Amino acid sequence: MDRLNVVQKLIKSHLVKGEMIAGSEIGLKIDQALIQDATGTLVQLELEAMGLKKAMTEVAVQYIDHNLLQTDFKNADDHLFLQSAAAKFGMWFSRPGNGVSHPVHQQHFGKPGKTLIGSDSHTPAAGALGMLALGSGGLDVAFAIAGEPLYINMPKVLGVKLTGMLSDWVSAKDVVLEMLRRYDVNGCRGMIIEYHGEGLNMLSTMDRHVIANMGTEMGATSTVFPSDEETRRYLKIQGREKDWVELKADNECSYDFEDEIDLAKVEPLIACPSSPGNVIPVKEVEGKEVHQCVIGSSANPGLRDFWVVAEIVKGRKVHDRVSLDVNPSSRQMLENLTSMGSFKSLVHAGARLHQTGCMGCIGMGQAPATNTISLRTMPRNFPGRSGTLDDQVYLCSPETAAASALAGVITDPRNLGKLYGLNYPKFQQPETEIINTDLLLAPSEEGSKVNLRKGPNIKELPYLEPLRNKYQVPVVLKVADNISTDEILRAGAEVLPLRSNIPEISKWTYFILDEKYYDRALEAKNKNGGHITIAGENYAQGSSREHAALAPRYLGQVAVVAKSYARIGWQNLANFGILPLEFDNPEDYDKINQGDDLVLENLHESLKRNLTIVLKNKTSGTDIKVKHNLSERQADIVIQGGVINHFNICNGGKIC
Amino acid sequence: MDRLNVVQKLIKSHLVKGEMIAGSEIGLKIDQALIQDATGTLVQLELEAMGLKKAMTEVAVQYIDHNLLQTDFKNADDHLFLQSAAAKFGMWFSRPGNGVSHPVHQQHFGKPGKTLIGSDSHTPAAGALGMLALGSGGLDVAFAIAGEPLYINMPKVLGVKLTGMLSDWVSAKDVVLEMLRRYDVNGCRGMIIEYHGEGLNMLSTMDRHVIANMGTEMGATSTVFPSDEETRRYLKIQGREKDWVELKADNECSYDFEDEIDLAKVEPLIACPSSPGNVIPVKEVEGKEVHQCVIGSSANPGLRDFWVVAEIVKGRKVHDRVSLDVNPSSRQMLENLTSMGSFKSLVHAGARLHQTGCMGCIGMGQAPATNTISLRTMPRNFPGRSGTLDDQVYLCSPETAAASALAGVITDPRNLGKLYGLNYPKFQQPETEIINTDLLLAPSEEGSKVNLRKGPNIKELPYLEPLRNKYQVPVVLKVADNISTDEILRAGAEVLPLRSNIPEISKWTYFILDEKYYDRALEAKNKNGGHITIAGENYAQGSSREHAALAPRYLGQVAVVAKSYARIGWQNLANFGILPLEFDNPEDYDKINQGDDLVLENLHESLKRNLTIVLKNKTSGTDIKVKHNLSERQADIVIQGGVINHFNICNGGKIC
Repeated sequence: MDRLNVVQKLIKSHLVKGEMIAGSEIGLKIDQALIQDATGTLVQLELEAMGLKKAMTEVAVQYIDHNLLQTDFKNADDHLFLQSAAAKFGMWFSRPGNGVSHPVHQQHFGKPGKTLIGSDSHTPAAGALGMLALGSGGLDVAFAIAGEPLYINMPKVLGVKLTGMLSDWVSAKDVVLEMLRRYDVNGCRGMIIEYHGEGLNMLSTMDRHVIANMGTEMGATSTVFPSDEETRRYLKIQGREKDWVELKADNECSYDFEDEIDLAKVEPLIACPSSPGNVIPVKEVEGKEVHQCVIGSSANPGLRDFWVVAEIVKGRKVHDRVSLDVNPSSRQMLENLTSMGSFKSLVHAGARLHQTGCMGCIGMGQAPATNTISLRTMPRNFPGRSGTLDDQVYLCSPETAAASALAGVITDPRNLGKLYGLNYPKFQQPETEIINTDLLLAPSEEGSKVNLRKGPNIKELPYLEPLRNKYQVPVVLKVADNISTDEILRAGAEVLPLRSNIPEISKWTYFILDEKYYDRALEAKNKNGGHITIAGENYAQGSSREHAALAPRYLGQVAVVAKSYARIGWQNLANFGILPLEFDNPEDYDKINQGDDLVLENLHESLKRNLTIVLKNKTSGTDIKVKHNLSERQADIVIQGGVINHFNICNGGKIC
Repeated sequence: MDRLNVVQKLIKSHLVKGEMIAGSEIGLKIDQALIQDATGTLVQLELEAMGLKKAMTEVAVQYIDHNLLQTDFKNADDHLFLQSAAAKFGMWFSRPGNGVSHPVHQQHFGKPGKTLIGSDSHTPAAGALGMLALGSGGLDVAFAIAGEPLYINMPKVLGVKLTGMLSDWVSAKDVVLEMLRRYDVNGCRGMIIEYHGEGLNMLSTMDRHVIANMGTEMGATSTVFPSDEETRRYLKIQGREKDWVELKADNECSYDFEDEIDLAKVEPLIACPSSPGNVIPVKEVEGKEVHQCVIGSSANPGLRDFWVVAEIVKGRKVHDRVSLDVNPSSRQMLENLTSMGSFKSLVHAGARLHQTGCMGCIGMGQAPATNTISLRTMPRNFPGRSGTLDDQVYLCSPETAAASALAGVITDPRNLGKLYGLNYPKFQQPETEIINTDLLLAPSEEGSKVNLRKGPNIKELPYLEPLRNKYQVPVVLKVADNISTDEILRAGAEVLPLRSNIPEISKWTYFILDEKYYDRALEAKNKNGGHITIAGENYAQGSSREHAALAPRYLGQVAVVAKSYARIGWQNLANFGILPLEFDNPEDYDKINQGDDLVLENLHESLKRNLTIVLKNKTSGTDIKVKHNLSERQADIVIQGGVINHFNICNGGKIC
């Protein structure tokens, strides 16, 4: 490895444990951490349980961006709790209304060459700046904040060479949709995607942010861009040119996998319901009636992304059927958009303006009507994530959303010339932007004096019992491939406010898939000491919420047996002491039915000595071989009942 | 009555039944009608049940302003239903995002000299233009739309003479709070308030709107201002000078009651939790910690009201503890605010922008945290209405809200000079405004071809059985004075989306007062054929929602026995066939306890012949005399089980 790519340089400069051999566990020094409110209340409770004195990372930021509806006291109480916790533990606090963590972090904190961990699966967006940015469950983030390394399996690197120039009406979102068309939602698991090539020259930092953000949708561990002159330009506008360093791949470096995209050949694309991987050209679904077009979110958060919509609808009027919902990504973006006159163009055309944050991307508002199509510039369209259970959400570029909002039907934006005499509005990067940090509170110097402020919905973390050596437990649920964390523990306004209250939120576990799971799980926990879930490929893809592990664990989930796992989901299972088992032979999936009784024996020795585990299916009388990919460290953690127990056992509860 | 006041002129010109004798029933021709979404789905279902072909009023408008959070499919489905119903029945449709009904109606439709009925208790806001505008339950509005007169008891007129000039930092909201300080929440029942005098000269039409809007809070039937040169100026800016007519009181006209406010003596006032009538000077509560300041709503919807806040916070920063929530009242206001640069000032100072509509005024978002103070420019602070059950909501002017947002504590805005070197920003009325009607859809010419679009949560109206001649039923609930419709059927994001589904929403009846009411009511309905509620003074004050009658009726409420009633609440009871009885002797309130068994006999004859009704309390063995104020027409309606039955009985279900 003389000639390194960007990913290898980033890993090498942060490696504190293990070797850079694909698939083996490595420990990385973490420079920066971000948490948001929906996952953050658990992180802060975990830090409290650890007795943390002060965040050890160079930068740690608590963002409030998900739960902003405040339909009762719970959201607002969470905000006060998180503000007090940020003050206590020496973190920055990004106040409600300041914006979505990813663009705000990039504006104010992102630095080329640094590592970032975030309790949000779209944290890799910061890869746009030449950072190594990883989404994780909250416990991993809590440990990183406490100064511990982040453990991951050494990924392979997919080098994607970009050539050519994007056509008019085609933008960064279409590029990442092209990747999703090629790789679907699980084609990049175990990989970090690194973009290179001359095509980078036409992608601004915010365009790169769009592409890096949605690398997560392909199951990638992260996405990385080089830090180049464009990165310097961006940081200069943010008033932080001094934070720029160059970070480029060595000439003639190699990649584990290679791919190439000719930007000139990318056309407007759209992800159909209900997976980001269902990508087809927009022209193939043109003409379908649309009732809602939503712009914004972490997947299209740039000033340009709003500006281009404003230019398209300027002086025109949204279709009488369509709600054009504008979801600002950050207060800074909104202020600049207003200064440019674009905000006014949007309002004049009939757009509905919403508060700055994540909104409908996580089902917090603007759920679509029954049997109607919603076009969104958001990153995900898993079933029910919008807040409407049988939703029909399509993901597309701002250009496609704007064209469709005018026409009232799905419209290829390349037809806007023909339909409205429009030329493609080309964004000129401004030389300066208004920078405003008023809603960003600096870390307190007097954290030790701060008391945590806990409202009545903020409950302690539940006690989790260690792994027993033997179980005879029922399969209370069997699910299919690509089950997302949205389906394990749903998003939306009814459930998100319960994120600080595990007993309450656990009532919603797997609710989208099976409303009776909760009752059966509790029964099995009380009667058999636990239960097992059977799953197909890519289990627990999507959002990083650790509630999708902690809540079923609280209800007695001892193990999941799947064909394969999404990275963060798998890590969360191990962190909370659930055995993440894999079929030796994926076809054995068919040999276990919901309701079967399974016996697992000699677990402690099998895990410690990495022996094959045999599941005895008492119902059918068959034996099924399963394996695990846990490291020794992780095997110990699972036996002890999860990271929190492990930590208390090893360090007596003190960390710093 | 040779010399008439404005109220008398308005009534005289619209009188179609009865005589103008205070307290007797009169029928009024209705020129305009407005409905909003939270009460409107019932109105449209009622129109469907009546078989309406086309709205008969000069103007009928369906607004969408209350339920905009769209936390699941229900809100969005309601919007589609209401859009289809407006098209079917020949109404205007004000799309979601266009704004709160009251300011939007005033901008586009209000005309001096006309009558307006609205299924929203703040409809009297249009009195600012010299209209007679009345809030009502949905059935009254439905009948008015169908061309029937509106029946009310002839009110008395309270003439309030305004003299002098408002001091700096004091504005229209303080004037109406001064009225509330004098009259509390029930001091103007049975009255219409008419403002006159030279002090009017310094009140713009939007200032008058503020004052007329909150007349409702004193229990007034309506509030009326003359139509003068200021009215003409306002209509000219709206591009409707042709709609102006002068409407002034005759010289030396008289009023039933008279009062006077020297505007120069009004100081910044604030309504403390949890009643709009708990008014004291701001200076008496200065220094209390504030966590939220909300500006906007129908009670301060004017361009000036937002502008003055923008000027106060311009170049400054909201306190780190305070969320300054900006709730735009109309899209037109937002567009003009943006043009003036004020929107940018708000964003720059750290304000959080929300979507245009009613928001937290009806508990649809931005509920305050537990044990924190919220200052709002809204009209009401009944317990729990904000969405947080034990809320601490204060009502104040935009000036007081802005001052407190900067300081982080309740602050008399007259101290802004001392604190920040600020001079009072004086608003110059603009000579033109941007007018934008793009989200206002004109009545369809082809209503007969339109099918109503009903989502799965939109249910038919329940059948209501006629009044029996005799009941022996229990008192399942006894409540205190001034119970608001918010306490009978709560506002907020959990309940409002159920407005189109009576069986579901009925589960929340009286929930704030007694979580077990629903179970006891259903039990009594099934076992005894119904039940009775006992109440104190001013029962069912506040919002006009007829769900506060229909839901308990659905659960078997046969009668309410109260010391007195709020006008709209009383009318809604009668409309849905609930006997609204009053104690002959208010002290008898103490002779009935929750759980007592009451016998009512010979009801039909007693009602028809207006005989005294005697309640036999079987539990205590006492007899209690009660009366009713129903007209003959209304007595018939109650016997038949409500207006819908009455109508079907009289007209065979066809109306036009």
